[in-house]
Amino acid sequence: MKEGVALPTIGFIGLGIMGGAMASRLIAAGYSLRLYNRSREKAEPLVASGAQWHDTPGSVAAASDVVVTIVGMPDDVRALYLGSDGLIEHARPGTVLIDMTTSSPALAREIAGKGAARGVEVLDAPVSGGDVGARDGRLSIMVGGRAEALARVEPILRHLGANIVLQGGPGAGQHTKLCNQIVIASTLLGVCEGLAYAARAGLDAQTVLNSIGGGAAGSFQLNNLGPRIVRGDYAPGFMIEHFIKDMRVAAGEAAQMGQELPGLELVRSMFRRLADAGHARSGTHALSRMYGMEPLK
Amino acid sequence: MKEGVALPTIGFIGLGIMGGAMASRLIAAGYSLRLYNRSREKAEPLVASGAQWHDTPGSVAAASDVVVTIVGMPDDVRALYLGSDGLIEHARPGTVLIDMTTSSPALAREIAGKGAARGVEVLDAPVSGGDVGARDGRLSIMVGGRAEALARVEPILRHLGANIVLQGGPGAGQHTKLCNQIVIASTLLGVCEGLAYAARAGLDAQTVLNSIGGGAAGSFQLNNLGPRIVRGDYAPGFMIEHFIKDMRVAAGEAAQMGQELPGLELVRSMFRRLADAGHARSGTHALSRMYGMEPLK
Repeated sequence: MKEGVALPTIGFIGLGIMGGAMASRLIAAGYSLRLYNRSREKAEPLVASGAQWHDTPGSVAAASDVVVTIVGMPDDVRALYLGSDGLIEHARPGTVLIDMTTSSPALAREIAGKGAARGVEVLDAPVSGGDVGARDGRLSIMVGGRAEALARVEPILRHLGANIVLQGGPGAGQHTKLCNQIVIASTLLGVCEGLAYAARAGLDAQTVLNSIGGGAAGSFQLNNLGPRIVRGDYAPGFMIEHFIKDMRVAAGEAAQMGQELPGLELVRSMFRRLADAGHARSGTHALSRMYGMEPLK
Repeated sequence: MKEGVALPTIGFIGLGIMGGAMASRLIAAGYSLRLYNRSREKAEPLVASGAQWHDTPGSVAAASDVVVTIVGMPDDVRALYLGSDGLIEHARPGTVLIDMTTSSPALAREIAGKGAARGVEVLDAPVSGGDVGARDGRLSIMVGGRAEALARVEPILRHLGANIVLQGGPGAGQHTKLCNQIVIASTLLGVCEGLAYAARAGLDAQTVLNSIGGGAAGSFQLNNLGPRIVRGDYAPGFMIEHFIKDMRVAAGEAAQMGQELPGLELVRSMFRRLADAGHARSGTHALSRMYGMEPLK
């Protein structure tokens, strides 16, 4: 920021692994933060760093120039923005609300419309890059909404992400994130199938990765999750239950648009069975367990 | 090579896009080459560079210390190695035969067994990296066979590839290449589905690539073929009819091992329909044409 220009006050709602890391970065950058989270204890370390706790989302909105939200499910986003104690109701005209949750494009459009009717700017701005990207401020931020609103908050977002791209009007950020998840779904499928074949053929799977990781089969999924699959380490990274949510939203949108996505449907059905078998809180690469665990049809 | 040690004479059979580039590199490295190819005219530029033409594969084998082959289909490999004028029949004991065709692991084991019975070493050593990798000597070479045989020819292979990995006994190189193709199949599926969704949602697909290419959705397929899909440029890279052959071999091996690969089967069925529709000689990324061209079920 230019010297002599007061930094905007930022509301921050949703202090999970991602949100907590992002809020910490904003505090470290000198911003005054107003916090709300469903469970208060996650806010304590940030309050100790100078952020101010509020008891309701509406109270955060009323006290902030910009509000960043990153919560769980589309229903949480709906309640947070459109509920009676919600952000749209309590934000002052001119406030910019930024939802960084991976959520529904249709809901993003609905919220933006209701915001516009009250003079409140709303951006959908989901991210990719995981907890490491959040901690290092190297998230990819996919934005939907008005360019003028993005321009106002871009100095804030620059503390969170290296790659900030306006993808279109309201909902376009969510659509882009769903593209990201759709690509990941079948990419991960390919990784799991290649490694299942390797094991079945009696190859050493890590040695196979040494041959194929740098070429046309190479991907973030193969090179980052492949070695974990080989080691049998299924700790999340990104949790299956969250990925199932994202795929459900993507499949619903695709169906509404008349776009068949047979790869996504295949992967979804496999993940649902994996979740039913008790693996909902494993990392997504536990998809490899479907190969050999049980017949796949 | 050490000074004073004569370079081995190399037979080279199969002068397509890949083989032609590889043979050129070996000539440039100072080796004396003996050539055979189904159509002679592809050999002419290499003969002009000093290589020697032979009229039969058997005659190449009889005149060479090491023979490199890279031809089309597994049936071509069978005829070349096991036919009455084939390499196994005519190679001198101690010769090393290296098949770099993407072919069948079972056939590779059969050939290696018949070679061993005559004192001829056989390696299966398929490659990835495409025509660019072949021209630049940066192929990934996946080797199956005896370590001692690989050690003898590794100085030759170093002119062709940067990443030479012994994956196991006879057939293990082919198995590894099939892993590579299995991973590519579903990775490409994910790329096509993500971009189909983007187009349907009204996003600018290249702008979407700018957001998602560097993150968890990123892959060689997305970053190299995604932009071509966006431009509608379906010229091969790697041709659908060759990929269908590789997937057929992979599916056959997987079925024999009792390994279900539903992603591979889905992609295969889509490619077969694409080939039936006249796109057999397009690049693999023309898979994206299946989205929107016609119903996918």
